[in-house]
Amino acid sequence: MKLAIHGYGATGHYVEELAPAEVVAVIDQTKSAEKIPSYQTVSELTEEVDAIIDFSHPSLLPDLLAYGLKTKTPLVIATTGFSEAELQTIKDASTEIPIFQSYNMSFGIAMMQQLLQVLVPLASSFDIELLEKHHNQKVDAPSGTAELLLRTIQELRDVQPVYERESTREKRQASEIGMHSMRGGTIFGEHEVLFAGVDELIEIKHTALSKKVFASGAIKAAEALIQKSAGLYTLETLYSQEDSHVTN
Amino acid sequence: MKLAIHGYGATGHYVEELAPAEVVAVIDQTKSAEKIPSYQTVSELTEEVDAIIDFSHPSLLPDLLAYGLKTKTPLVIATTGFSEAELQTIKDASTEIPIFQSYNMSFGIAMMQQLLQVLVPLASSFDIELLEKHHNQKVDAPSGTAELLLRTIQELRDVQPVYERESTREKRQASEIGMHSMRGGTIFGEHEVLFAGVDELIEIKHTALSKKVFASGAIKAAEALIQKSAGLYTLETLYSQEDSHVTN
Amino acid sequence: MKLAIHGYGATGHYVEELAPAEVVAVIDQTKSAEKIPSYQTVSELTEEVDAIIDFSHPSLLPDLLAYGLKTKTPLVIATTGFSEAELQTIKDASTEIPIFQSYNMSFGIAMMQQLLQVLVPLASSFDIELLEKHHNQKVDAPSGTAELLLRTIQELRDVQPVYERESTREKRQASEIGMHSMRGGTIFGEHEVLFAGVDELIEIKHTALSKKVFASGAIKAAEALIQKSAGLYTLETLYSQEDSHVTN
Amino acid sequence: MKLAIHGYGATGHYVEELAPAEVVAVIDQTKSAEKIPSYQTVSELTEEVDAIIDFSHPSLLPDLLAYGLKTKTPLVIATTGFSEAELQTIKDASTEIPIFQSYNMSFGIAMMQQLLQVLVPLASSFDIELLEKHHNQKVDAPSGTAELLLRTIQELRDVQPVYERESTREKRQASEIGMHSMRGGTIFGEHEVLFAGVDELIEIKHTALSKKVFASGAIKAAEALIQKSAGLYTLETLYSQEDSHVTN
Repeated sequence: MKLAIHGYGATGHYVEELAPAEVVAVIDQTKSAEKIPSYQTVSELTEEVDAIIDFSHPSLLPDLLAYGLKTKTPLVIATTGFSEAELQTIKDASTEIPIFQSYNMSFGIAMMQQLLQVLVPLASSFDIELLEKHHNQKVDAPSGTAELLLRTIQELRDVQPVYERESTREKRQASEIGMHSMRGGTIFGEHEVLFAGVDELIEIKHTALSKKVFASGAIKAAEALIQKSAGLYTLETLYSQEDSHVTN
Repeated sequence: MKLAIHGYGATGHYVEELAPAEVVAVIDQTKSAEKIPSYQTVSELTEEVDAIIDFSHPSLLPDLLAYGLKTKTPLVIATTGFSEAELQTIKDASTEIPIFQSYNMSFGIAMMQQLLQVLVPLASSFDIELLEKHHNQKVDAPSGTAELLLRTIQELRDVQPVYERESTREKRQASEIGMHSMRGGTIFGEHEVLFAGVDELIEIKHTALSKKVFASGAIKAAEALIQKSAGLYTLETLYSQEDSHVTN
Repeated sequence: MKLAIHGYGATGHYVEELAPAEVVAVIDQTKSAEKIPSYQTVSELTEEVDAIIDFSHPSLLPDLLAYGLKTKTPLVIATTGFSEAELQTIKDASTEIPIFQSYNMSFGIAMMQQLLQVLVPLASSFDIELLEKHHNQKVDAPSGTAELLLRTIQELRDVQPVYERESTREKRQASEIGMHSMRGGTIFGEHEVLFAGVDELIEIKHTALSKKVFASGAIKAAEALIQKSAGLYTLETLYSQEDSHVTN
Repeated sequence: MKLAIHGYGATGHYVEELAPAEVVAVIDQTKSAEKIPSYQTVSELTEEVDAIIDFSHPSLLPDLLAYGLKTKTPLVIATTGFSEAELQTIKDASTEIPIFQSYNMSFGIAMMQQLLQVLVPLASSFDIELLEKHHNQKVDAPSGTAELLLRTIQELRDVQPVYERESTREKRQASEIGMHSMRGGTIFGEHEVLFAGVDELIEIKHTALSKKVFASGAIKAAEALIQKSAGLYTLETLYSQEDSHVTN
């Protein structure tokens, strides 16, 4: 697989570090890559690549989509902070080329969602609780990823989130899902789903240790994406065995 | 679902306790059930049932199979200690009726195997390690269930078990799978599979707290089995979404 | 050590099962013990014992204290539901004999408290979070034991409990301690304290699997108590190395 | 507290990053520190400091000890790879000044050892198992830190390590301690001690996420050391409440 990296910040560097044999070009306004052909804008790219991994900035999206459409190159879009209008242009482009767009690139979280697809229907009589742990500087709770997992569970079972039990003195209902947000130290990110049944427990847990997981997740996504037909893929659909995809 | 329990020991009692509305008959040589019609042998059973759950003794297998074949009743066979010849008679009978036979009835372990089917192929670049914990009276290591999980993993990836690293001073090979058996106190049974990648971990863990999990697993198995066509089902195939089954 | 059991319900039976060589008498109104000398009331007890373990009823407290005082026998009082007046009579008696009284007999929780005594002062720059898990029929949250652990921590550091973070969008304060109550299935009882610092975590966790832990805890308490001088001991003070005790 | 850093590699930089207000000087042959007075050799140091943290090289030990002895400055020596003769010069110097020397600076592991000091004697009837996890490039097993923890346990209880159970079919002995080394991915370092009793478990676990823990451990050690009298302190003795120390 031949890859171009679009955007050469910390995560872009990790992509190069993790797949040195596969990264054949870097697109970066400062042209700072040393060992690899580098270009200031994607329109100048001359290497033929199988996919472009984008960790850049929303302002560069029009160029990226134009290049992808012109050359029929699959796009892994990991940039964050798009407007609704920008997301719509991604959707439009995906009618002609395969695009994977996600605000969380981690392959592990993609796998968690695949596991939930299997486990939630099977463990229909089990109570579900969700625990996430992050560093003490994080302002939002639950984490965006916990909410992503919650939505995946809710698509499969009718459960309502419960954020604390201290103020009520009532038994847990089967239709509840307890949500727990631990905060402390420099924890990068843990997500754990507990399934509790009669005298047995199943736990699935993901631990991320650094931003490197977003780089490795993007590479994995590129590998999966180049096998796909045109369409807009999500963390949930990219790795499912059927060739399902969200259509426009 | 209407169930008959064949064999009324500790686990048979748990089946009744967990599904009081569904158990309509007990077959037990001492006819000791109090609130439920009970029979000394399965051939005397007059209630119509959707499935029979068997926690009895190998010597009662011929009667059980004869009744199942005559009445086309699905059988959940949880009795242990069959000879090869006895297992063959089960296989033969499964050409005409759905039979689920397993030495581990736990639904949680069945679910673990479903999760491994999804995760092992996806996490192809992750190292796998397997940890099980049991009480300090257990003689064998690894546990039979750990070996079951190992075989499931080996069907999906070419890995060789490694039981200790102390005697060698070598880096881990990607083709290895570390097997760890903790023993202590009265731990009933824990099985955990670790997938370790670049800066991320996925762990899936099953904890069994009592024999009750074998009873609830048998009930779950009956629910799944009565939807199936004739065939011999295992923990791996019973809950998979396709109607796959081991043929004779 | 020679023990008498005062009260012969489920937990009293476990005491006998766990220490068959040491239990020399059972006091039980129905005199139902089979292999051991049994008495209807403690006043009839003729065996000389080193300690009495009480899992009976508050109404029997006066008899128990009277016997303890008369014979200078140390008392492990595990009965629950005493009134303030009854607790005062225990305090009064403890001026003459060693008494251990606690609503949670578990030795593991006693050990957790010893560990907290060491860890909370040492890990002064670490954030602390507390997680407990119990079955889905439990009405109160957090558990009484979690509140016990919280108080132990609060005696050592000025922290305020926080029960949810979803309704605020603020960074964690160092003076907070997150409290999390998971509910599901038949979980008997887990308590976990997380200490999160800069790039390191320390976790201490206790898992109770059955009522048997209260029986074994009571036996352990008797062993410790018979070494002590008169006084009223708690879970916190009984196992500390100094001969500290709460004085009246 | 005023600190000088002796040796300005990755971990030395972390010391500065974690305690910017306290680091008043850097000693580094290249004099590369930018915002802090820096010196090529410790003998040139003019700032008065409360302690020196040394992450340098064994060849610089004579200079360091000479300066410490001359100015009566406590030394935290985190450099690794000393010869027996060099270790002896450290011991000799510690008759006059407080010195903390350890090949593992992590404060978390120091705390684990304090916890073991409390727990091993208390949990005398519990089975102990030790599990460590590291990345797949690590050659030795068990880790040096696991061996350190094992020795701490062995000083308190007569247990023999067992590295695998697969080749024997025997019950666990109370005098055994199972040692388990998981290897996978990029795991930086986890150490877990399981205490398993009758229906209860206690687990204590340390997770290190980066080299930063050695820097923060060294700062903690300096804080503790400047309160001490002359002597050679170890991870085990530095944080114990009594002013115990290894004498020469």
